[in-house]
Amino acid sequence: MNKRVSLKNVKINSGFWQERQEINAKTTIYAVWEQLKKNRRFEALKLQPWKEEDGLLKPHIFWDSDVAKWIEAVAFTLEHHRDEKLEALADEYIDLMTQNQQEDGYFNSYFLVFEPENRWTRRGDHELYCAGHLIESAVAYYNATGKDKFLKFVCKFADHIEQVFIKEKSAEFSTPGHEEIELALVKLYSVTGEKRYLELGKHFIDMRGVNEPCLVNYPNTNGGYAQDHLPVREQKTAEGHAVRAMYLYSAMADYADLYGDAELLSACKTLFSDTVNKKMYITGGIGSSYLSEAFTAPYDLPNTTAYAESCASIGLIFFASRLGLHENSSIYADVIERALYNGVLANISLDGKSFYYENALEVDPKLINRDVCSLVKTHYPLVERQEYFECSCCPPNNARLFAALGEYIYTKNDDTLFVHQYMGNSAEIEVEGKVCTVTQTTDYPFSGDVKISIKGLKGKKIALRIPGWCEEYSIVLDGVTLNDFEVIDGYAYINIMTESTEIELKLTLDAFLVEATPNVQENSGRVALMRGPLVYCLEGVDNRENLRDCIIDKELKNCEIDFDNALNAATITVDGYRRDEKSFNALYERANNERYQKTRLKFIPYYCHANRGITEMIIWILGHL
Amino acid sequence: MNKRVSLKNVKINSGFWQERQEINAKTTIYAVWEQLKKNRRFEALKLQPWKEEDGLLKPHIFWDSDVAKWIEAVAFTLEHHRDEKLEALADEYIDLMTQNQQEDGYFNSYFLVFEPENRWTRRGDHELYCAGHLIESAVAYYNATGKDKFLKFVCKFADHIEQVFIKEKSAEFSTPGHEEIELALVKLYSVTGEKRYLELGKHFIDMRGVNEPCLVNYPNTNGGYAQDHLPVREQKTAEGHAVRAMYLYSAMADYADLYGDAELLSACKTLFSDTVNKKMYITGGIGSSYLSEAFTAPYDLPNTTAYAESCASIGLIFFASRLGLHENSSIYADVIERALYNGVLANISLDGKSFYYENALEVDPKLINRDVCSLVKTHYPLVERQEYFECSCCPPNNARLFAALGEYIYTKNDDTLFVHQYMGNSAEIEVEGKVCTVTQTTDYPFSGDVKISIKGLKGKKIALRIPGWCEEYSIVLDGVTLNDFEVIDGYAYINIMTESTEIELKLTLDAFLVEATPNVQENSGRVALMRGPLVYCLEGVDNRENLRDCIIDKELKNCEIDFDNALNAATITVDGYRRDEKSFNALYERANNERYQKTRLKFIPYYCHANRGITEMIIWILGHL
Repeated sequence: MNKRVSLKNVKINSGFWQERQEINAKTTIYAVWEQLKKNRRFEALKLQPWKEEDGLLKPHIFWDSDVAKWIEAVAFTLEHHRDEKLEALADEYIDLMTQNQQEDGYFNSYFLVFEPENRWTRRGDHELYCAGHLIESAVAYYNATGKDKFLKFVCKFADHIEQVFIKEKSAEFSTPGHEEIELALVKLYSVTGEKRYLELGKHFIDMRGVNEPCLVNYPNTNGGYAQDHLPVREQKTAEGHAVRAMYLYSAMADYADLYGDAELLSACKTLFSDTVNKKMYITGGIGSSYLSEAFTAPYDLPNTTAYAESCASIGLIFFASRLGLHENSSIYADVIERALYNGVLANISLDGKSFYYENALEVDPKLINRDVCSLVKTHYPLVERQEYFECSCCPPNNARLFAALGEYIYTKNDDTLFVHQYMGNSAEIEVEGKVCTVTQTTDYPFSGDVKISIKGLKGKKIALRIPGWCEEYSIVLDGVTLNDFEVIDGYAYINIMTESTEIELKLTLDAFLVEATPNVQENSGRVALMRGPLVYCLEGVDNRENLRDCIIDKELKNCEIDFDNALNAATITVDGYRRDEKSFNALYERANNERYQKTRLKFIPYYCHANRGITEMIIWILGHL
Repeated sequence: MNKRVSLKNVKINSGFWQERQEINAKTTIYAVWEQLKKNRRFEALKLQPWKEEDGLLKPHIFWDSDVAKWIEAVAFTLEHHRDEKLEALADEYIDLMTQNQQEDGYFNSYFLVFEPENRWTRRGDHELYCAGHLIESAVAYYNATGKDKFLKFVCKFADHIEQVFIKEKSAEFSTPGHEEIELALVKLYSVTGEKRYLELGKHFIDMRGVNEPCLVNYPNTNGGYAQDHLPVREQKTAEGHAVRAMYLYSAMADYADLYGDAELLSACKTLFSDTVNKKMYITGGIGSSYLSEAFTAPYDLPNTTAYAESCASIGLIFFASRLGLHENSSIYADVIERALYNGVLANISLDGKSFYYENALEVDPKLINRDVCSLVKTHYPLVERQEYFECSCCPPNNARLFAALGEYIYTKNDDTLFVHQYMGNSAEIEVEGKVCTVTQTTDYPFSGDVKISIKGLKGKKIALRIPGWCEEYSIVLDGVTLNDFEVIDGYAYINIMTESTEIELKLTLDAFLVEATPNVQENSGRVALMRGPLVYCLEGVDNRENLRDCIIDKELKNCEIDFDNALNAATITVDGYRRDEKSFNALYERANNERYQKTRLKFIPYYCHANRGITEMIIWILGHL
């Protein structure tokens, strides 16, 4: 088992992610706060009586989770960025919650106001989900500030949950309808050392799918909406609501570690493989159907109707990072990179103020109104990011992930420091009792050159991830190109022989084309352009409309990389072909390749899409033999 | 204006359609009869009280139309095929209807039993639609048998309708919710000479979309479900329920003729152009959405979810054949041919016993269960033909069209006999007071050679349609290849100089590929294989599954035409390429054309598909540059 490196010890201080973290801290967290405030999330913590006629928004069962994730984002931000205003606001909301916590430890701003008599009666109603987010948030806030008020609040709440679900068994259900508390209780254990919390979480894991009816039964599939169709150790395929699935699987990986549970770990690996090898978009998006926000059949990955909820990709990162502690294979960090730079980063506008909840891989604004009947129509994701959603889980989830990104760069074991992600940062990391310092400098993902300065790791190893997308690279150690290092499962292991070492990792960053297995019928005949970890796309605003008809030159002839200052990103322009609608006199005509005219196609990183007005967008474009 | 040639004067007596007409007469009409009988369509004509507890099927507002279309199919069949049993059955049902016709002329087996007080109160409830089908049927039965009982019945019914809708204006609506009676009244006029019937039909045409609320209002479109969003002369785009639209437009073309109404004709041509140039599948299918069985946006022609109701393609044939009387352009007969040999013929199994209501252009049986939630899921057409549908409009509609096919071969004007369709037949046709005889012998559509023997047309012209798909052809007149004939708008005009003439038309029948305009985004990068009028498809049963990934060699290398005895049709086998799923270790890999392996692809005519068990099917396959 590898160990995480605490967020406290890693500062992202240059390059691509420093910019994004700054936007997150200075813009996104405030933007999310304003929307949550305007929509009365914080007001609701006061537990005031609600009257329909006041015109006030009616609180919802999941509101507390939005508050919790926002405070958690604040906490992670405070680890690397002092902001007294944010801290004061968090304290204010924590005060409200603690003031209104019930004698017995219970807290839920919806049930306490609307249905106090119905506590713990409806499995589908997110009480344990909200409790879980409050716990995660309190742990993060304690770690960041040292203040323990919120932590005590959630301990008391967790004690109450233990009382109800284990000691009394007085709740009308036995496991959460929406998983989340399981992984939260691991964090609560880690900071309090209180084994009871771990046992409570393990109880929820072990009881899942055992003698309890499914929350929602799906006809025609093997799966349960809430992953409760089978005991968790017997689950072999990723099923149901994708966010729920990822939170559950993440927790399973935690408990597999803490209890040395090989069967649980094996289930996790099988579920991970099913997810990433059969049900994941090239962007790291998962859960392809808006119906139940769920996984569907293997290889069912439609582009225009992709649901690919932002939170699900974030959950996939949580899951992959935990499995990466169990196994030194780059498949986990590769998936994290894929999701982070594509599916997740695309959720947020470049200015940090607006968000996608669903993430299409292909956008045609015309499609939205294409169905004629209002009763039942094809559901397409929105074509513009929004500042707020009624169900506002994604924006604060994004904010907390970006604030905590420092956690995903390194892990360690007794003799090796693993470098999973390439981001400008400085870190102080204890490896086998000795603190070493590591500094990365890089323009990744727009450059493949990464400088890593290391002090204090003499006699140990550093393991550098060679990304799955990379076919050529070199490693220079103190000015000398290395030829004799081992690469095992995607990591290059370098022995550190000196107190102070400079490593230059040079990943060759060519543009390249990717195809999907023929099982993904949606993408037959189509390819995606990538460069490094970035998936690229065409937008109508650069290439005029009807992008589905564009063909890319598969040899990538006349490929030019430019830096677009407005997008602050590298663009790729390459030869292609397309037909002119005007070359047709009728709807159907004899095929004739002479209709295809040479053209130039300008690609931008997928994460930059939809920042220049409503326009077509496509990732999977036609290739040719 | 050209004139039709009466069905009575044309006998399809050899070749492809003789076989199909025989299956229609000996199998299909009986199969439809058995299903209608089993499902109490004829029983309902007795107007017995209905009790839920009897377990009897509850009659439906459109049941009379099924009976009417079945009798009409019988009538058309009797024109060329004596069948005393069918005639006796028809007489029996006609007796039941006449016995139960009301004093005032009204008849509807649903309303008379269930809601006698609600006659003519609900526009959406098909009373005028059923009346229309009864009228068409009675005219056909009178023409075929000379018996006038049914004709008198519908005259009395039409008189009642005139009373209610024109004289009293006592109905609670002013135009039919489902068009059909308008074109039927033209036929009633033609056989009775009674102008009042024509006026009644014109009244419905003129009042449509005038001061009456839309039957169903669509948000997001310009159109009305029942083509009542605008006065008919102002309609420019095909909108709403596709069968309704075709029946209306057909009637509009009739009235344009009979009243010399140029504005109406102009609207018809605009609507025809919108339909076939923007909203028609390559098969002649129209109405792409199962939602409201309707037209959607231009170029929205999805293949797997294609609705393309059988009746709508039949309606398109009705519409095109009427416009073909107004204008000597092959675009109309080309569309008839396209729909007839593809969309319509595919409705029926090769054995003539089962039917499609919806006609997908691409079938993947896996898709059916792909959505996870039962509440709202993508609607896919069935993957097997059925013997019966609750709404059983299509099977008898097919039967009546096939029985009446002789009507679509020829038209005439004062000096020219037009040959629109190539089918083995013998006809006696009066052209300018003189009867000529015409005999066609051909293996069309599997051969392009058509022999036409003509007697008695000396001094006049014959106009042979050169099909739109045909790029090379020759015409041999009495053994001499012609070089100096005029081709105008798709017809080759040949002067007939002798009393007895033999024409050999040789249409070169190569396999060829078709592409759709780039506006049909669904088909970007894809081509369809055709030979003559036949659209071809791949089936999984011949080519294993995952047909979306097959690429056809666009030069059609090693193209072999074979005759498949089981399908009784010409098949095409040609070089292609496809990838092996096993060439992938992951869901996404670097693109590599070496994955594409050469293969042979076996195509069958689309109309033959789904006759060998449930299997994948595709028309639009990948091409390459």
